[in-house]
Amino acid sequence: MVLPILESSKLRSGVDFYLAYSPERVDPANKKYNIRNTPKIVGGITPESTEMVEVLYSQIVDTVVPVSCPEVAEMTKVFENVFRSVNIALVNELAQLCEKLGVSVWEVLDATSTKPFGYMPFHPGPGIGGHCIPSDPYYLANKAKEVDFHTRFIELAAEINENMPYYVSFRIMETLNATGKSLNGAMLLILGIAYKKDIEDIRDSPSLKLVQLLSDKGAKVAYNDPYIPKIKLSQGSLASVEVNKENLSSADCVVIATDHSCYDINEVATYSKLLFDTRGATRGLKGDNIARLGE
Amino acid sequence: MVLPILESSKLRSGVDFYLAYSPERVDPANKKYNIRNTPKIVGGITPESTEMVEVLYSQIVDTVVPVSCPEVAEMTKVFENVFRSVNIALVNELAQLCEKLGVSVWEVLDATSTKPFGYMPFHPGPGIGGHCIPSDPYYLANKAKEVDFHTRFIELAAEINENMPYYVSFRIMETLNATGKSLNGAMLLILGIAYKKDIEDIRDSPSLKLVQLLSDKGAKVAYNDPYIPKIKLSQGSLASVEVNKENLSSADCVVIATDHSCYDINEVATYSKLLFDTRGATRGLKGDNIARLGE
Repeated sequence: MVLPILESSKLRSGVDFYLAYSPERVDPANKKYNIRNTPKIVGGITPESTEMVEVLYSQIVDTVVPVSCPEVAEMTKVFENVFRSVNIALVNELAQLCEKLGVSVWEVLDATSTKPFGYMPFHPGPGIGGHCIPSDPYYLANKAKEVDFHTRFIELAAEINENMPYYVSFRIMETLNATGKSLNGAMLLILGIAYKKDIEDIRDSPSLKLVQLLSDKGAKVAYNDPYIPKIKLSQGSLASVEVNKENLSSADCVVIATDHSCYDINEVATYSKLLFDTRGATRGLKGDNIARLGE
Repeated sequence: MVLPILESSKLRSGVDFYLAYSPERVDPANKKYNIRNTPKIVGGITPESTEMVEVLYSQIVDTVVPVSCPEVAEMTKVFENVFRSVNIALVNELAQLCEKLGVSVWEVLDATSTKPFGYMPFHPGPGIGGHCIPSDPYYLANKAKEVDFHTRFIELAAEINENMPYYVSFRIMETLNATGKSLNGAMLLILGIAYKKDIEDIRDSPSLKLVQLLSDKGAKVAYNDPYIPKIKLSQGSLASVEVNKENLSSADCVVIATDHSCYDINEVATYSKLLFDTRGATRGLKGDNIARLGE
C-alpha cells in the first residue's frame, strides 16, 4: 500500500528512499523495557531497505532484528498480540470453570506461577483493552480468510474475552441477588476505568463496557479512576468520584474493575457493604462481603 | 478416593497418617530444573496434613508451596499441562496458516522470541507426546462436564495437536507429489521417534503415529532413533537403521520427526533426495530438496 504512494512522488525506491516495516513493541507502564532495550524487528521490501532501516533504528535501539520481508515483521507483531489474547482468554475460561468447581482461580494461578520453566503467568479479569490486543488479532483472522484458513484460536479467544464484561455483569447481579437486591436500582461504585492498572488509557477498556452494561440494566453507577476524570456513556457523561468511607459504604456493591496500585484494598474491603473483585486484588482477605471473579 | 482405602486399614487420618496431594513437575531432559530446585505444590485434606507433607518434602526439595486443598494442587498441575497443550496448538495452527500465506513460521517465531516481555516461545511440530500433555487436560475437560462446563480451549488444542501427524503425513504426500511420486510405494526414512529431542520416551509419541499413518498409506518406512532400537507397528515391528549416506540417499523422502541433537543436519540435508523437516531443524539451510512444516 505504501510503496505506490511513495513512488507517485517520482522518488525511486532503493535510490531515493528505502522502505521497511518495523512493528511497535510497547508495553505501557512497563518500567523495565522501553524503546531502547526492546529489540526492534525490521523487514524491508529489499535487503538494502532492511539494512538501511536497521542502521537508522540502531541509533536509538540496542538490538535491531532484521527479517526477510515486511510480511514476516507484521506476522511477528500480530502473533505477539495473538499469544497474549489467547492466554488471557485461557485464564478467563479457567476462572469461569473454577467458580463452578468451587476452587479459587487466584490460588490456583499463584501456585502455578511457582513453576520455574514452561509456564508464563496470565491473569483473569473483566476483559481485554488497549490499542493492540483487542484489534490486531482480527487483522490476521481476516487475512487468513483470503487463503481459506480459519484462525480458530483467535476467534475463540475473542469470543471468551469479549464476553467477560457480560459475564462479570452477571456475576455482580448474582452477588447482589444473594443479598436479596436486584441490580436494577442498585447503587454501584466501580473502581478503575483504564484498561489496565496504573495507566491512563481507556481505549477499548472493558471497564467502560462494564459500566455501560450495568447502567443499561438499571444500576446507578458511580466510578473512580485517579487517571480518568470523566467518561462518556450513551446516557451522558460521568465524573470520577472520590474513594472514601462515605462513597464506599453508601454503594450497594463496590466493583474492583481495574486494580490501580494506589487503591487501599484494605480500606475498600472494610467499608464496602458488598465488594466484587474482578482482579484478585483482595486475595488473602477474608470477609462475607467479598466476592471474586473465578471463585 | 485414597482416604477411604487408607482408613479401611483401621489407621486414622490425622492421627496415624496424614494425607496430601503433591503433583509431579518434571521436564524430561531439562538440565537446569530437577526435583530439588523445582518448587513442589502440596495440598492436604487438612491443614495438618499439608504441614506434615510439607515437612516431608522440604527434606529433598528447596521450596515447598502449600495450597489449601488437594483440589487446588491438582488444578495447578492440570492447568500447567493445559497451558502447554494450548500454546503448542496455537503455534501448530500458526504453522498451517504460515504455509498458506507463504511466510516461514520458523522465521516468524525466531523473530517473535526476541520480545523480552509478555511472550514465551513454543515450537510447532508433528504433534504432542509424553505422559502428561496429551492426557492430563482431558481429566479437567471431563471433570468440567460434571458441572455443565465445556473447556473449549482444551478441546480445540486437542483437536489441532492430534491432527498434526495427519497434517504432516499429507504434507509429505504433497512434497512427494510435487516430484511426481506417490506416497504409496515411496521409501521413507523417519528420523526421531521419541516424543521430544534427546530423550528415550516414546509414550504417545506423534512420530509413532506418523510412521503408522505413512505405512497405512503404502509407504515403505524405515526409521532411525539412537534412543529407540525397536518400535511396534500394527503390521509388525521395525528396527532402527543407521543414518548414513547410503540410507539417506536411497530414501525417496527423509523426514525429521524429532530433532535429536546428535543428528548432523548438514549431512542429512546434503544426502537426502527430498527432506521434510517438521521441527525447523534445517532453518537457515537452503536447497530445493528441503521442505518444512509451516512454510
